[in-house]
Order: sequence, then C-alpha cells, then structure tokens
Amino acid sequence: MSQTTPSPTQLEVFPNQYPQRDYLVKIRCPEFTAVCPKTGQPDFGTLTFSYVPDQVIVELKSLKLYLQAYRNVGIFYEVVVNRILDDFVQAVQPRKLTLVGEFTPRGGISSVLTVEYAKK
Amino acid sequence: MSQTTPSPTQLEVFPNQYPQRDYLVKIRCPEFTAVCPKTGQPDFGTLTFSYVPDQVIVELKSLKLYLQAYRNVGIFYEVVVNRILDDFVQAVQPRKLTLVGEFTPRGGISSVLTVEYAKK
Amino acid sequence: MSQTTPSPTQLEVFPNQYPQRDYLVKIRCPEFTAVCPKTGQPDFGTLTFSYVPDQVIVELKSLKLYLQAYRNVGIFYEVVVNRILDDFVQAVQPRKLTLVGEFTPRGGISSVLTVEYAKK
Amino acid sequence: MSQTTPSPTQLEVFPNQYPQRDYLVKIRCPEFTAVCPKTGQPDFGTLTFSYVPDQVIVELKSLKLYLQAYRNVGIFYEVVVNRILDDFVQAVQPRKLTLVGEFTPRGGISSVLTVEYAKK
Amino acid sequence: MSQTTPSPTQLEVFPNQYPQRDYLVKIRCPEFTAVCPKTGQPDFGTLTFSYVPDQVIVELKSLKLYLQAYRNVGIFYEVVVNRILDDFVQAVQPRKLTLVGEFTPRGGISSVLTVEYAKK
Amino acid sequence: MSQTTPSPTQLEVFPNQYPQRDYLVKIRCPEFTAVCPKTGQPDFGTLTFSYVPDQVIVELKSLKLYLQAYRNVGIFYEVVVNRILDDFVQAVQPRKLTLVGEFTPRGGISSVLTVEYAKK
Amino acid sequence: MSQTTPSPTQLEVFPNQYPQRDYLVKIRCPEFTAVCPKTGQPDFGTLTFSYVPDQVIVELKSLKLYLQAYRNVGIFYEVVVNRILDDFVQAVQPRKLTLVGEFTPRGGISSVLTVEYAKK
Amino acid sequence: MSQTTPSPTQLEVFPNQYPQRDYLVKIRCPEFTAVCPKTGQPDFGTLTFSYVPDQVIVELKSLKLYLQAYRNVGIFYEVVVNRILDDFVQAVQPRKLTLVGEFTPRGGISSVLTVEYAKK
Amino acid sequence: MSQTTPSPTQLEVFPNQYPQRDYLVKIRCPEFTAVCPKTGQPDFGTLTFSYVPDQVIVELKSLKLYLQAYRNVGIFYEVVVNRILDDFVQAVQPRKLTLVGEFTPRGGISSVLTVEYAKK
Amino acid sequence: MSQTTPSPTQLEVFPNQYPQRDYLVKIRCPEFTAVCPKTGQPDFGTLTFSYVPDQVIVELKSLKLYLQAYRNVGIFYEVVVNRILDDFVQAVQPRKLTLVGEFTPRGGISSVLTVEYAKK
Repeated sequence: MSQTTPSPTQLEVFPNQYPQRDYLVKIRCPEFTAVCPKTGQPDFGTLTFSYVPDQVIVELKSLKLYLQAYRNVGIFYEVVVNRILDDFVQAVQPRKLTLVGEFTPRGGISSVLTVEYAKK
Repeated sequence: MSQTTPSPTQLEVFPNQYPQRDYLVKIRCPEFTAVCPKTGQPDFGTLTFSYVPDQVIVELKSLKLYLQAYRNVGIFYEVVVNRILDDFVQAVQPRKLTLVGEFTPRGGISSVLTVEYAKK
Repeated sequence: MSQTTPSPTQLEVFPNQYPQRDYLVKIRCPEFTAVCPKTGQPDFGTLTFSYVPDQVIVELKSLKLYLQAYRNVGIFYEVVVNRILDDFVQAVQPRKLTLVGEFTPRGGISSVLTVEYAKK
Repeated sequence: MSQTTPSPTQLEVFPNQYPQRDYLVKIRCPEFTAVCPKTGQPDFGTLTFSYVPDQVIVELKSLKLYLQAYRNVGIFYEVVVNRILDDFVQAVQPRKLTLVGEFTPRGGISSVLTVEYAKK
Repeated sequence: MSQTTPSPTQLEVFPNQYPQRDYLVKIRCPEFTAVCPKTGQPDFGTLTFSYVPDQVIVELKSLKLYLQAYRNVGIFYEVVVNRILDDFVQAVQPRKLTLVGEFTPRGGISSVLTVEYAKK
Repeated sequence: MSQTTPSPTQLEVFPNQYPQRDYLVKIRCPEFTAVCPKTGQPDFGTLTFSYVPDQVIVELKSLKLYLQAYRNVGIFYEVVVNRILDDFVQAVQPRKLTLVGEFTPRGGISSVLTVEYAKK
Repeated sequence: MSQTTPSPTQLEVFPNQYPQRDYLVKIRCPEFTAVCPKTGQPDFGTLTFSYVPDQVIVELKSLKLYLQAYRNVGIFYEVVVNRILDDFVQAVQPRKLTLVGEFTPRGGISSVLTVEYAKK
Repeated sequence: MSQTTPSPTQLEVFPNQYPQRDYLVKIRCPEFTAVCPKTGQPDFGTLTFSYVPDQVIVELKSLKLYLQAYRNVGIFYEVVVNRILDDFVQAVQPRKLTLVGEFTPRGGISSVLTVEYAKK
Repeated sequence: MSQTTPSPTQLEVFPNQYPQRDYLVKIRCPEFTAVCPKTGQPDFGTLTFSYVPDQVIVELKSLKLYLQAYRNVGIFYEVVVNRILDDFVQAVQPRKLTLVGEFTPRGGISSVLTVEYAKK
Repeated sequence: MSQTTPSPTQLEVFPNQYPQRDYLVKIRCPEFTAVCPKTGQPDFGTLTFSYVPDQVIVELKSLKLYLQAYRNVGIFYEVVVNRILDDFVQAVQPRKLTLVGEFTPRGGISSVLTVEYAKK
C-alpha cells in the first residue's frame, strides 16, 4: 500500500477547437479502485467527470492511466474525490467541473460523493 | 422490545480534510430494522443520509453500529427518522442533511419519510 | 354498486411528535379498487399520498380501511381523487398534500390524476 | 362477504377452427381480487391461464366476468386456484391447462400457486 | 389512404365537478397509428395528454374513437400532433395542455414531439 | 373492415445459401395490427417467427407488406396466428417454424398464442 | 445473541382440500434476518419455499412468526437453511420442497443456498 | 479513413406548418459511427437532436444519410458533435437546438457530450 | 461497398493451456456493422460467440480486427453469420461453437440468427 | 506485475454439518481484478462459484482474501478461471463446482468463461 498519489502532470490535454461555446463533456470511469488506508482492503467505485472545457480538453487515455495509478494507494473516499478534483482542475482548467464517486457497499452501506468546482 | 434508543455518542467522527469546500456525501443503509411498538412486528427499511460535512465526517462503521442498535427498539416510523436526524446533527454538525427512510409494505401500504436539516 | 362514499371520520390520527419541523410523509397504496358508475366494471389503481403533517399524523390501518370502503362504490376517477383529497384534508389537516391516482388501462388507455392542497 | 363461488356455466366458449393442431393460448388476468375468509381483508393477484384448446376456445369477456364474480367471495388462495382450474376444465375441456396465481404480499410474504391439468 | 382528419366534434365532454381547483389529468394512449403520406407506410406511436381541466373533462371512450379515426389518414408527425392539440383545445378548452407523441423507429431513427397550450 | 386475408403469394423468398446446415432465423414484428370482427375495435400485437430455413429464406420487406395487409381485416387472435403460420409454411416451406403472437390488453386481459410447425 | 432456534411446532397447518392433485405453492419471505455467530453482525436475506403439499398446507402467519423467531439467533447460512428445511418437512410433510436462501453481500460477496427434499 | 466531413447542404428541409407555435422535436439516432483519427478504430454512439423548429423542419431520411456519411471519416468526439450542431443550425435554422452524443466505452471509459444553440 | 469478405487467416490463436478440460468461452461483440447489398444501407448488430476450445484459443484483438473488416462489405444477414462461423471454425477448430447475430430493426422488424457447429 | 498466483492453502474450510444431503452454495464475487500480462492493463470481472459441498465448506473471508491476492498478478482470463477452479477443488473438494468469470469490455468486446468440475 502506497501513500503517494499520482501527479496531475500525468493528465495530458489537447486544444479545445470550440472554445467560443460552452459545452458539456461527461466521462464515466466505472473501473476505479484504491485501497482503504484503515483496513488495507480494496475499494471499488465509479468516477464520473462532467466538465465544461475552456482552452483544453483532457486526453482520455492519460486520464485512464492517471486513475489506474491509484490502484495500490491507501486513501479515504473523501480525500480521493477531492484530490482528483483538484488535480483535474489544475491540469485541465475547466470552466466548471462536477466529480461524482459512487463506491460499492462495505458492511451493507454504500457511499456516493459529489464535489464541484466553478471558475470564478 | 426495548424502549431505549441508542445514544448519539455512538456516532464517531474524524476531521474533514476539505472544510473550505461544500461537497455532498450520500450514504445508503439498506439493512435498517426496528420493531413496531403497536404490533411488536419487525419493520424493515432503507435509510439514506445526504449531508454536506462541516468540520467532521461520520465514521461509517460507527454509523452502522448505531443503526444496528435499533434492532430490538420499539419505535414508530415518524419518530425514528426524526430522532436519527437529531442524533446525526448533534454528533456530526453538518452544514446540511437530508434523511430519507423507505419502509417495506405493511398491509399492502408502503411509506417513505423525508426529513431535512440546514445549519443557520 | 353503492353510491355512498366512506366518511372522513373513518380516518384516525395520532399526535405528530415533531410539529416544529416540516417533513414529508409519502404513502403508497397500490391496491385501490372501485367501480365505474357508467359500465359497472371494476377499476384498479395506485393511490400515493405525499403530505407534510401539521399537528397529527394519519394512522395507516385506518387509511387502509377507509380506502377499502370504496370497493363497491360507483365513482369516476376525477371524483374519487378529489373526494379523497378533501376527506384527508378534513381529517388530517396537513400543511401540504399531493395525491396521485394511477389507474390501469381501459380500452388501451391509462389515466393518472394529480390533485394538490396547501394550507393557506 | 359471500360464500358462493361463480358457476362454470358463466364461461362461454366458441368453436376452435384449428382443432387438428396443438397450440398454446396464454391469458394473463392481472386484476383478480377476492376476500380472505379469515381476516375479511381483500386479496389481489394475477391469474395466468396457459391452455391447449381441443374443440372450443374460451370467450375472453365471459372469462373476465366469471373472474369478477369472485370480487366479494371469501376464499383461500389454495381453494380459489384449484376451483377455477376445475371450472375452466369443465367448461372448456382443454387438452392441457396450467393455471398460475400470483398474489400480492401479506405480512411481508407473497405466494404463487401453480395448478395443472392434462386430458388423459 | 384518406386525407380527411377526424372532426373535433367527435370528442365528447362532461362537466368537471371540481372546477374551483387546478388538477392534472394525464392520459396515455399507446395504440396510435396513422399512415406516412410520403411512403404510404403505417406509423405507430404513443400519445400522452396532460391537461388541467376547466369546465369540462374529456370522455375517454370518445377520445379513443377520435384517435382511431386516424388509422387510415395520411399525415406527418408534426402535423398530427399539432392538429390533435388544436382539436383537443377546441373541444375541451383546458386551462393547460401538453401533448407528447412518441413514434417508433423508422430507418433506425425515432422521434418524440412535444406541443403545449396554455389558456391566456 | 374487410373479410379477405392476404395471399401467401405475397411472401417472396430467395435461395438459402447454407441449406446443408440447420440454423435458426428469428424475426420480431412488433407493429402488427388487425381488427376484432366482433367489436370492430383495432387489435395490436407483436408477431415473432422462429424458423429453420430449408431451400429458401423469406424476404423481409415482403413479410412486412404481407403483415400490413391485415390492417383492416376483421379476424380473431386464434385464426390470425394459425392462418399466418399456414401461409408462411406454404410460401417458405421451412424445416421448423414457431409463431408467437403477443396481443395488448383488452378489458384488463392480455393474450399470447403460440403455434408450431415441423416438416415431417 | 441466542443459541436456541425456534421449534417446528410453531409451524401451524390446515387441511389440504385438493390432496388428489399435485400442485405447487411458492412462498417468498424477503424479510429474514438472523445473526452471524462469528462476528455478531446481523445477516439479511430472502427465503423462498416451493413445495407440493400432501395432506396439509402451512398457515402463513405461523410461518412468518416462526421465521421472525430467528431474529436474535446466532447461526450460519448453511445451518439455517438446512434446519428450516428440516423443520418445515417435519411440520408440513410435503411431497416435495425446495428452499432457497439469498443473503445480502458481506465483504463484497453474496451467497445463495438451495436445499431440496423429496418424499420417498 | 477520410478527412472530409459531409456538407450541411445534404440536410433537406420542408416547411413548418405550425411556425406560430414553439414545439419540441426530439430525434434519436442510435446508429452513428465514425473513426477515431488517432487509432483508426471505429467509434459508435447515439446522437439525439432536440430542437424547436422555426420556418422549416428537417427531413428525416436526409438526416440519416448525412449522418451515415461520417462512416469512414476520422474525427474526434468533441469535433464531431460541434460540427454536426453547426451544420444542423445552418441548414434548419431552429429557434433552439440541443445535441447529445453518447459514445460506447473505450478502455473502460465512456463519454457523453452535450452541445447547445439558441437563436438570438 | 466491397464484395470481398475478410480472410480467416486474420484470426490469430494461441495455445489452450487447459485442453484436457471442456470449458466454455463466450465473447460478446456489440459493435458489428456491415452494409446491406440490396439497399446499400449500413446494418448494425451484436455477434456473440460461445465456444469450447480445443488446442487453441482465439486472440481477442485479432477477432476485433477481423470483424471490423466487414465495415464496408455488402453482405446479407444469413450469409454473414454462416461465413463468420465457417471462418472461426477453420481458424480456431473449436470442439463446439454457437454464433448468434442480433441485428437492429429495419422497417420495424428485427432479426436474430443462430448458427451452430460441433466437431464430430 | 507479479507472476506468482496465490496458494490454495489460503482457502480455509470448516466442517459441513449436513454432508448427508446434496445442496448448492452459490457465491458471487463482483470485485475481482487482475492484470493483463500482455498489455499491463488491469482487468475487472465477477466470479461466481456454484458448488455442492462434501465434507467441508469454504470460509468466505479466506475466499475474499485469496481472490484479492490476484490484484497485481499478470494472468490471462482463460488461465485465471481454470487455476482458481483447480485451487478451489484442491482446498474444498466439493462434489460439484461450476465457476463463471464475467469480465468487463475491452475494445468493445466482453468475455464470459465457464469452467466445471465434478467428483468422480
């Protein structure tokens, strides 16, 4: 179990060809997994990014690899969704972003976390 | 059948690492059971907490144990959802909380109760 | 086929222990049946009450018996949902009430009626 | 609550134009209701007839009226599906018949009964 | 294939017993069929009326017969939903009306049309 | 309402390129409509053909037109599925054929008919 | 947590009025709960009985109370479904019985157990 | 793999017979396919147009052929939905248009893009 | 539109490490597309292979590329599923193979073809 | 990425209290993950064990830990389901076992593998 989360520099971008228009990109990643730092047990969930791009668009393969880099990281639900939001904002600088993390049940209880960002 | 409901002190918390940001935590507990004080028959339902944390976050295992402590308590639908809302607010002091209790049919009739709290 | 609808006095209530708080109680009754006064054929439907209680709460068994009393009453869709709304308001005096009646298809056509009340 | 069940003579038939061929007719009646003789409470269910006609076919409107005649009859699940099977066999004399009765939950428990007949 | 659409006078009405209250009546008609005037092929769809009655209520059987009268009429999607809206408004004079027409796929493409009316 | 059903000669065929192998072709036609000869009301249903071709395969557009020709024909459920089976067998001469007709509810009752053929 | 399981004598029966015919009774009980003897945590599941009655039929309310008596009993999945099968056979003496227990996930893993009995 | 996208002149229109009224036309095209310009692999998705027509309506067959013309074009998700929006606006000049593109998963990740236009 | 179908030599294989045991491999390919040779319109469908490997296993990426090579080939449903079966058998030589092709609706009619092979 | 698979000795067992009776235990594990040895990309799937126990029963927590030990192992679909079958048979020695592995889509293609064992 690692303590080091992946760097936002792993997220690659390419130019948005339609920056004059607000439009919404929703990306669903159902194969997210990390490790519970308290129990050492793996966690599983679906992360969904909904963002309005500004000057750049995230490259999907780099997003996949960035998320895979959490595979052996010990990190809580609340921390992981907030940290990924921060990394995505730093790398992609979207006009708006909503990130939803839906995690599978543990002890009969399941959790969904929703974090938002809007450029001022 | 007991008359004593669990204490809010059973709900443990830990620090919210992102208090500068409003975000939503939704927790679904489909294995809630208590006893009808009138008939002595068991009731079954799903409780869903949706809250915006302030300084602390609820610890999920303590929430599970707190809810399990209602197993042999005789209590009406309306009372149990209001009481659990009050206990959660006292222990976690969230910025906002919505609690929904969906109960299985009795006599062909099913009930859903929705209670809300917002910090002033 | 009877012409006499049940009396609102059949609806029993008990005190609301949390009158200081607005909360929503939704009650789903999928086994409603009455008779079409024109054809004499039975009608079937689901009635859903969504109300914010004020000083009292409806007792569920009395609600079930009140609804069962329509079993052999000849009454149109539009009349029955409006009358049940009026009876519920008279007996329970809720802050708000929405009543939805969903009826099964007749001649390939199905109907849903929605009636609302709000205390001034 | 009546004790008298409808007569099989209520079931009308008309000639089967293809008696040289075995084929299956499945009829689904989701609006069956009768009364529990023990509690006086109404029961609700779906009856499904699957039969291979011989010389005659059941007329659907007469089947509907025959089933509606159980509306105020007090009768147990086990008795009603067996009696309806017997009545249908007497009136229609099919080569084969399966009758399935699916009843809505009572006390959190739901029942499905399956009765079969085959001409020797 | 006929060019003549049915007359709004086919739609019968009866008095609304609760005109003092706004309430919503939703009627779902899944068996609508007409003919494409260009290809001569039949079209199939579901029409859903959602209206707030004023002084009268539409009689359901007359609505069924009115819609059946389109069976051999050649008419485009856009025209048929607008014309039926106009006819319904003329005959029933509702406070509000939304009509949705959902048509089955043609050439792998399916269409949904939504038309609205509100009394001034 | 016509009494004349379409002719099996409307069903066109083309050579089966793989007659040395038994394989199954299942064709689902959800837009079948005819008229009830008793009430004059339209009937709607889904016809599903499952057949093992022998020397020829049915041409789908001719099957569509053949089925559309029932649009204004007055015919009972039992007759229509048996007649279509006979017509299909005459035109296509399959090794095996199962035809299932699922009809929409009438008077709260829905019917499914299953007819089979096997070459001797 | 108790070690004592309920007695089969809690299961009441009444005479089967159609013993000359084999028919199937399927009873679904989605509100079963017991306690894991190892962890002390509650288990939840659905029990489904499918039986062919011989001389008697199980009385549903007594079955409900018998199953409720497991509420605070510590017992493993494998033991509970086998014991309930044995008790049901002893009390009801059916011609055949299949009992299926579907339990909710624990540690991300869910279990379904199927036990069968046939009178020799 | 071609670089040339189809021309908006491929989109044919015909007069809107109800221009005095705002109404919504929703067109679902589940068989869209193009090629990823980076990997050369085919992409698949569903395009849904929701528009309020002004003076003209899009002709559905020309829309189908226009979309089919992307079959061997190499183009990114973001570009294709924006370009189709622009072409549709140029040809149909609607009062409003929302275009949603839902693409099938690649590398376990699926994307949905939403682009909007409103006439000033 | 091409007339040339891909070669079975495009299907690569690798050794089966468990040839002593019969086991089933089911591969679902929902993104199959070819062209109708009669109308020139694209067809879309899902192909599902279920096979028991003998000495080799099909390599999934080569299967994907082989199927993609049908993209611009004009070929009928019946021919394409039989040809792909033959190619798969030639390249992989399975003990058993079932191939199911489910195609999207055309003219309101959808087709499913099932072809089978068993090694003698 | 490791080459070493977990040992069957990780699977703990406890005595079967009902060895005189054949019964079926079905265990669904939806959180299985390993690594593709060719691409280094993670694979995700659901493993379902259906077995008839003989003298012992598998302990669920040890099964969970055994499966988690594949998290960073590079192994093909075909190998992993066969190896897990072998390990389970060695440790639990069931009378019968069916293991199904359902894996999420890769390149638009999803795989399901079914392996079986029966004691001679």
